[in-house]
Amino acid sequence: MIIDAHAHLVAPPEVYVYQAHLLASRGSPVQHMVRPVISDDLLETHLQEQLAIMRRVGTDVQLVSPRPFHMMHSLKPEKIVREWTMFTNDIIARQVKLHPEAIVGVAALPQSPGADLKACVEELERCVTELGFVGCLLNPDPTEGQGPTPPGLGDEYWYPLYEKLVELDVPALVHSASCCSPRESYTLHFINEESIAVLSLLESRVFEDFPTLKIIIPHGGGAIPYQMGRFRAWRYRDPQAEPFEVSVRRLYYDTCNYSKDSLELLLKVVGPDRVLFGTEKPGTGSVRDPYTGLDLDDLKPVIQSIEWLSDEDKANIFEHNARRVYHRLPV
Amino acid sequence: MIIDAHAHLVAPPEVYVYQAHLLASRGSPVQHMVRPVISDDLLETHLQEQLAIMRRVGTDVQLVSPRPFHMMHSLKPEKIVREWTMFTNDIIARQVKLHPEAIVGVAALPQSPGADLKACVEELERCVTELGFVGCLLNPDPTEGQGPTPPGLGDEYWYPLYEKLVELDVPALVHSASCCSPRESYTLHFINEESIAVLSLLESRVFEDFPTLKIIIPHGGGAIPYQMGRFRAWRYRDPQAEPFEVSVRRLYYDTCNYSKDSLELLLKVVGPDRVLFGTEKPGTGSVRDPYTGLDLDDLKPVIQSIEWLSDEDKANIFEHNARRVYHRLPV
Repeated sequence: MIIDAHAHLVAPPEVYVYQAHLLASRGSPVQHMVRPVISDDLLETHLQEQLAIMRRVGTDVQLVSPRPFHMMHSLKPEKIVREWTMFTNDIIARQVKLHPEAIVGVAALPQSPGADLKACVEELERCVTELGFVGCLLNPDPTEGQGPTPPGLGDEYWYPLYEKLVELDVPALVHSASCCSPRESYTLHFINEESIAVLSLLESRVFEDFPTLKIIIPHGGGAIPYQMGRFRAWRYRDPQAEPFEVSVRRLYYDTCNYSKDSLELLLKVVGPDRVLFGTEKPGTGSVRDPYTGLDLDDLKPVIQSIEWLSDEDKANIFEHNARRVYHRLPV
Repeated sequence: MIIDAHAHLVAPPEVYVYQAHLLASRGSPVQHMVRPVISDDLLETHLQEQLAIMRRVGTDVQLVSPRPFHMMHSLKPEKIVREWTMFTNDIIARQVKLHPEAIVGVAALPQSPGADLKACVEELERCVTELGFVGCLLNPDPTEGQGPTPPGLGDEYWYPLYEKLVELDVPALVHSASCCSPRESYTLHFINEESIAVLSLLESRVFEDFPTLKIIIPHGGGAIPYQMGRFRAWRYRDPQAEPFEVSVRRLYYDTCNYSKDSLELLLKVVGPDRVLFGTEKPGTGSVRDPYTGLDLDDLKPVIQSIEWLSDEDKANIFEHNARRVYHRLPV
């Protein structure tokens, strides 16, 4: 079975019309919080497009979360972020009901700069226990590049969420949202925030305090697998410290990187038992690579073509690593 | 000849005593701006340590700039930053005079958040025309992680400096300083700022407006060579756009990355004609790699061992690329 552990919502336009209304309303007039009626037929039409893509590239199951670029965590008032988050999670829950054999839900959380994590913990619990979701996204920077950012993911600020993740036995996928900085695109902000997340987590007590916590760093782990030498160097200076090449294996990673050479580097650095197959298809990489004729995010043949991976390694990447991390996977 | 194009000042303690005095003074009492007397003998003693390291690893020449971690660009008032910058540039100029066969100067600039670039342009001109320096450091984030950052390096805000770089025919090495963010170490800030710099420059008109401008992205180019797929994907969507794999070759890079696998990826992605040998030795990588028994920043044997590089490629990396970028190199 091929499990694509990193995919995002493909939704009918009505969903984004509602987002635009929420944004325009600033959350004040009650009537703008009335959700649009979106029929199962309409959802099914869009799902069929997604299922056709999955069939074409040989994916059996996708783990689908709300689209991070649209999470708008930095918007005020917080209630529009919360309503939008719950709405998109609910849309995904309906997709899961329509195609439980192919779609599995991963929640967005209603993160807001400066807020505590109560609303996030509640929404995580609702999505897992009521909607059957198997994990959540976690944005290390809900200010969306505007700052001041919350403490790094290694800080106790995040512990209420980690406690709930452990209690529910579900992982978090680190994924920033949009970016409001004129000098940093949202797509580069993903990468930089992932690098910050890796270092913050691995320099902290988080995995001592939560030994069963599971965190996935997508997009091949930001810059870290490529910049290992720098971080190995600092650890070697302290003979008591765990070598950094050991520490990086406390986290999980995914293959949404769109380059064979880079994926080989990732797999060498963190090990094939720590990398989940993920494509975000349709998404950033859904464009034809002129060198291969395949879409950049058509990663199954890329991974299959890595000669030094054993059949067991490939089965781990395509399926079993996802099962080890997403314990509640119903498929 | 082996030219290490990325090295930083190794200075006697008296230099940092002066920095501490400047910091403590807040720039107010004039007497604290009186520079310490540092004898040639004392400078020579420390230089001998550095020259011994160079001999041990087979480096003939180092391009030495002030140590970025100590540049303290975000400190106020600006005049202490300016005095410190000029002082450290002057120390390097004295090292060059003591060992012109082995040490070449690269300037730091007195960057300050919110200030225009007048002081930087003046100091660049002084260092090149009076001290014989061959290039400068350029910090994309003089706020040192505190924000609000100046515009990205692709913005016209930086044009007065680019004009002077072109006029003097010297390159800039992109290098951030320290980092005041509790969630991002200075060493990771280097990497993230380099990624931001690459994208900002390559999405801008800078190389159309300054076709002879030369910019070096150190540490293997931040995350970008590893994350090429993501940025290639966005460019392929626009059939008129220059492919990103072509654009990355508008910049130069260096080998301060401390991992053979990563250096091979860098060399494949940007080409051996775009990578300068650099080690920052002594610096971050000056610690023994338990797998090889060599210091992580002893990169000459690492590059020599890359089998698919031709002798010409290796000569470019070790010497000729530096000469193509640093036109004023006197050695």
